[in-house]
Amino acid sequence: MEKINIMINGLPGNVAKKMARFAVSDEKFNVIPFSLTGLDIEEKTVVIDNVTFELVKPDSRDIKTTHIKSVYPSFISIDYTHPNAVNANALYYVKNKIPFIMGTTGGDRKQLEETVKNASTPAVIAPNMAKQIVGFQAMMEYAADTFPGLFKGYTLQVVESHQKGKADTSGTARAMVNYFNKLGVDFDVDHIKMIRDPEIQEKEWNIPREHLGGHGWHTYTLTAEDGSALFEFKHNINGRDIYVSGTFDAVLFLKDKLDNPDKTRKLYTMIDVLNGK
Amino acid sequence: MEKINIMINGLPGNVAKKMARFAVSDEKFNVIPFSLTGLDIEEKTVVIDNVTFELVKPDSRDIKTTHIKSVYPSFISIDYTHPNAVNANALYYVKNKIPFIMGTTGGDRKQLEETVKNASTPAVIAPNMAKQIVGFQAMMEYAADTFPGLFKGYTLQVVESHQKGKADTSGTARAMVNYFNKLGVDFDVDHIKMIRDPEIQEKEWNIPREHLGGHGWHTYTLTAEDGSALFEFKHNINGRDIYVSGTFDAVLFLKDKLDNPDKTRKLYTMIDVLNGK
Repeated sequence: MEKINIMINGLPGNVAKKMARFAVSDEKFNVIPFSLTGLDIEEKTVVIDNVTFELVKPDSRDIKTTHIKSVYPSFISIDYTHPNAVNANALYYVKNKIPFIMGTTGGDRKQLEETVKNASTPAVIAPNMAKQIVGFQAMMEYAADTFPGLFKGYTLQVVESHQKGKADTSGTARAMVNYFNKLGVDFDVDHIKMIRDPEIQEKEWNIPREHLGGHGWHTYTLTAEDGSALFEFKHNINGRDIYVSGTFDAVLFLKDKLDNPDKTRKLYTMIDVLNGK
Repeated sequence: MEKINIMINGLPGNVAKKMARFAVSDEKFNVIPFSLTGLDIEEKTVVIDNVTFELVKPDSRDIKTTHIKSVYPSFISIDYTHPNAVNANALYYVKNKIPFIMGTTGGDRKQLEETVKNASTPAVIAPNMAKQIVGFQAMMEYAADTFPGLFKGYTLQVVESHQKGKADTSGTARAMVNYFNKLGVDFDVDHIKMIRDPEIQEKEWNIPREHLGGHGWHTYTLTAEDGSALFEFKHNINGRDIYVSGTFDAVLFLKDKLDNPDKTRKLYTMIDVLNGK
């Protein structure tokens, strides 16, 4: 099979680095040795497994893009940059006709979608690249739409633990609460319990020490009014590996869309990737 | 609102007794003071909250039915009898044009469905009357059909605890394993771990002592090959109360079908009751 050219943007960020490390050793991909980065990054290059990546800042990216495109006429971008860059990057990809996967969260999501809808090349936008979590969310959405009020009268408890640096409540937990609300449960997102203390995480939750700096553990507990029934859903993710395979699946999905273009549609989500449609 | 006449069959069985106790004090229902029972039952009557139920054995039920129908021209039967009686009872209901809810498990289920499909009155057949569990199973079925292989490579563990007397593995657990198989997980129903020891249930599982004689606790745990992800689903039911409200919802559903008959269809499940269709 012909290798797929990919450009991983967001080096030297942690997630982009992890993507690059896996991609370099994956025979399905040919990784382009350039990476878009932010204005404030001091490094000029990043070395990952013998590949030297040249970091490209906004002020030089137009000229570099012309060069890259002359060497690699076709490639797919993976974006794990910065919430501040989301919308500008999307405009840049669209202008330069570069199909892309936006794994970066934040930014103006509505505007992001509009940008892609009006584009001539396809893109996958996903706030969460972990396929199994996306699938679980789809299950919950299905239940919320199909059986509204199913858990009426039940009490909900939501606890989520993430690395110390994460200031806001988990977006996934907020989305889940929305489904539980539709299922008849009275619960406000403000009551999501956030665990951010590494000591509690290690001692009370048994989160492996090596993942204290990067994890997402979620527990949703529903209890019947009379105490006769308890339902509990849990998804515990250690590290970032789960996001790599989801992102790479999105690349294969986009490649297929490039080979078999759908003229009516350019914007895709991870649900489309899961469905393979 | 006019009260709905119901006949609860299976007294003096525990589940039928519980249904009767709730029904007698529920102003939506008028409970008929007769109950079909088995040949080997010695009692002639059962008293529940000041209502004396006459137990009707198979050898006298034709003549009693004529009498009951002369007093209550229309009523709905709730069947919580015995697996041995399932098919004969269904034939009896159909012959006598009595709409019914079959909460009894076992018997020849295929024959049971055929009996109802050819009937002139509607029936709800459900191996599980707990609405939330039925809804959760529907979620799992949706995921299995929509995202086959989503959990490929994951390891599954299934543990279920029920009262000491239950000899076989839970039918719900077996159905769930079927969904997990479709989701790409390699697991044989023989590997479902059954807990039947009251001491372990109380000390290790913290199942309330008063429910050791009647409970169903299920935990399904999926672990990624590299240990980076864990998904867990749990449903713990204490006692039988959850089945009562599901059964009564099925009664309201059947009443609606009697008032607005669907000529093309007589056989319904709890999914139909949940959907209200």
